Amino acid sequence: MEYKKIVDTLYWDNDSLYLLDQRFLPHRVDYRCCRTYRDTVDAIKEMSVRGAPAIGISAAFGMASAARESLQKGYNTVQMLSFLEEAAAELNRARPTAVNLYWAIKRIENILQDNLESEPAAIYKAVLSEAKIMHEEDIKNNRLIGAHGNNLVPSKASILTHCNAGALATGGYGTALGVIRAVFESGKDIHVFIDETRPLLQGARITAFELEQEKIPATLITDSSAAYLMSRGEIDLVVVGADRIAANGDVANKIGTYNLAVLAAYHELPFYIAAPLSTIDPEIDSGSDIIIEERSGSEVTGFGECCVAPQGIAVLNYAFDITPANLITAIVTEKGIISTPDRNKIKSLY
Amino acid sequence: MEYKKIVDTLYWDNDSLYLLDQRFLPHRVDYRCCRTYRDTVDAIKEMSVRGAPAIGISAAFGMASAARESLQKGYNTVQMLSFLEEAAAELNRARPTAVNLYWAIKRIENILQDNLESEPAAIYKAVLSEAKIMHEEDIKNNRLIGAHGNNLVPSKASILTHCNAGALATGGYGTALGVIRAVFESGKDIHVFIDETRPLLQGARITAFELEQEKIPATLITDSSAAYLMSRGEIDLVVVGADRIAANGDVANKIGTYNLAVLAAYHELPFYIAAPLSTIDPEIDSGSDIIIEERSGSEVTGFGECCVAPQGIAVLNYAFDITPANLITAIVTEKGIISTPDRNKIKSLY
Repeated sequence: MEYKKIVDTLYWDNDSLYLLDQRFLPHRVDYRCCRTYRDTVDAIKEMSVRGAPAIGISAAFGMASAARESLQKGYNTVQMLSFLEEAAAELNRARPTAVNLYWAIKRIENILQDNLESEPAAIYKAVLSEAKIMHEEDIKNNRLIGAHGNNLVPSKASILTHCNAGALATGGYGTALGVIRAVFESGKDIHVFIDETRPLLQGARITAFELEQEKIPATLITDSSAAYLMSRGEIDLVVVGADRIAANGDVANKIGTYNLAVLAAYHELPFYIAAPLSTIDPEIDSGSDIIIEERSGSEVTGFGECCVAPQGIAVLNYAFDITPANLITAIVTEKGIISTPDRNKIKSLY
Repeated sequence: MEYKKIVDTLYWDNDSLYLLDQRFLPHRVDYRCCRTYRDTVDAIKEMSVRGAPAIGISAAFGMASAARESLQKGYNTVQMLSFLEEAAAELNRARPTAVNLYWAIKRIENILQDNLESEPAAIYKAVLSEAKIMHEEDIKNNRLIGAHGNNLVPSKASILTHCNAGALATGGYGTALGVIRAVFESGKDIHVFIDETRPLLQGARITAFELEQEKIPATLITDSSAAYLMSRGEIDLVVVGADRIAANGDVANKIGTYNLAVLAAYHELPFYIAAPLSTIDPEIDSGSDIIIEERSGSEVTGFGECCVAPQGIAVLNYAFDITPANLITAIVTEKGIISTPDRNKIKSLY
């Protein structure tokens, strides 16, 4: 069965970035129009777009918006580069944990370095072109991740995933869901268990939406059901995405990922990370050096319009956690599979 | 600091059972009036009352309602005993996992055995009196559980609990929260982390309510945050309640309990069960023989009033899981502490 794209995560049209506003999924498929780079900063902060690769691509298009704004303001090249530097700094600060954001901005900055003498219109063209290339490359890389990951999955398998590392977390197709899609397309008999992923329920809202649209057999569970299902033999393997991978192979990903890694080790199940090389941050030595975003307690005390907890209760809401490399069976990248990841194997990719 | 009761879990007044309707906590403190035993069956099924000991006491009062109904209907002793048999069967079927329900009904049935020749009015009086005794005994036992459990907790401790094993899960005071209350009352420096406990959020709604009312320092977290907090050294021990304990020491409790037991073992933290002896079911050989209730998928696809998941997604919603005895550091009962529980130690309690 061939993958048919259901909706676009994001697209560039009419000099603007359109982001599928994922806060309203699965009930509403609305696009949020970002005309300025600050619109994109807000959309990233408010999680209209989320998922490490999708955030990176959005930031690259955010830089294209900043370039377009410079043209509108009538800036010369020097003024434009200064404005773009400001935009890069603000976009970099939008969210702290996913490295793809910095990686994407860095790629655009490299383009700017090559265009220090160019006319403003040429700079805009070059930045926009690079953002589009990054978007296309991401989808291509997801396909490769899927193909490599497929080799790890038996002909019949029950697969657990957490959060959403799908088409909507990337340029399209997905990393962890890219593997699941590739496995399904290859005709294997799979069933997916979806962790709902509190507090923002990206599993229940977004992964369930993606899998249901494509008729990939799937069952939604609460996050704390995974352990019991493993003990009953109902799960064969775990595959999730990543927000940042340190030089030693430690992985930052959605809160709850480390929980699953411990459970998988205890039940002797394979635990796979699916992520593009752009998620690896060779400048971060180990997981303990990764900044973990702490988000508002209101995400936990309520959901949407519903408030459930008593007013005034203290909340601790880490958005991500760290899974040490020793709990990871393999990292699946577009360049192939890194089994039992460590510093040397990660280094050899560069 | 001495414990001051905030609200009653349940009380008998005006020939009726009044249950604090816990579905509406923390926003509304409403009592559901159960005039007939079928009202009580419905209240248990719909989880207006929940928590193994509270369900047991409610069922005992449900039997008192059935006795009162028999008087109203003008039944003779034989008719009354037959009606009470029907009521016992229906109450027993209300929820399958917590053994305290069967245990409580059994105690009332023993009273009936002693009153086979009694007048209907005397039977009613005997049943109601036994229900009241059970209620009082439960609170007394919780106090003893608290006192024993306090001996396990150091003078400064960060304690994780799951779901609600508090005053509102029992006749009053609580099992796991009974331990926490006793520790707090003894002046130790504690901080409680509360798992929100999806899908019905008993942690966020009820445990947070109880601890906030009593100013016991507490922080609410999502269920899948516990692992990461343990890895950061932010949790010293785990204490939870139980719905049924098998003869070999395996424990059925709220879904997510087994998850925490695996995590505690991995992080070398003590994992305690606090439960009255009425939770032990010597007729069940091991955890795999305990019936695990599967509840409606709508509890997972929704959040409070909000529906979050796409329509039509399959859901698996086990309400409980099984923690094997080998992962339990100790079971705290009113008779004392059973360290590293096993079949012989459990047997010696009888």
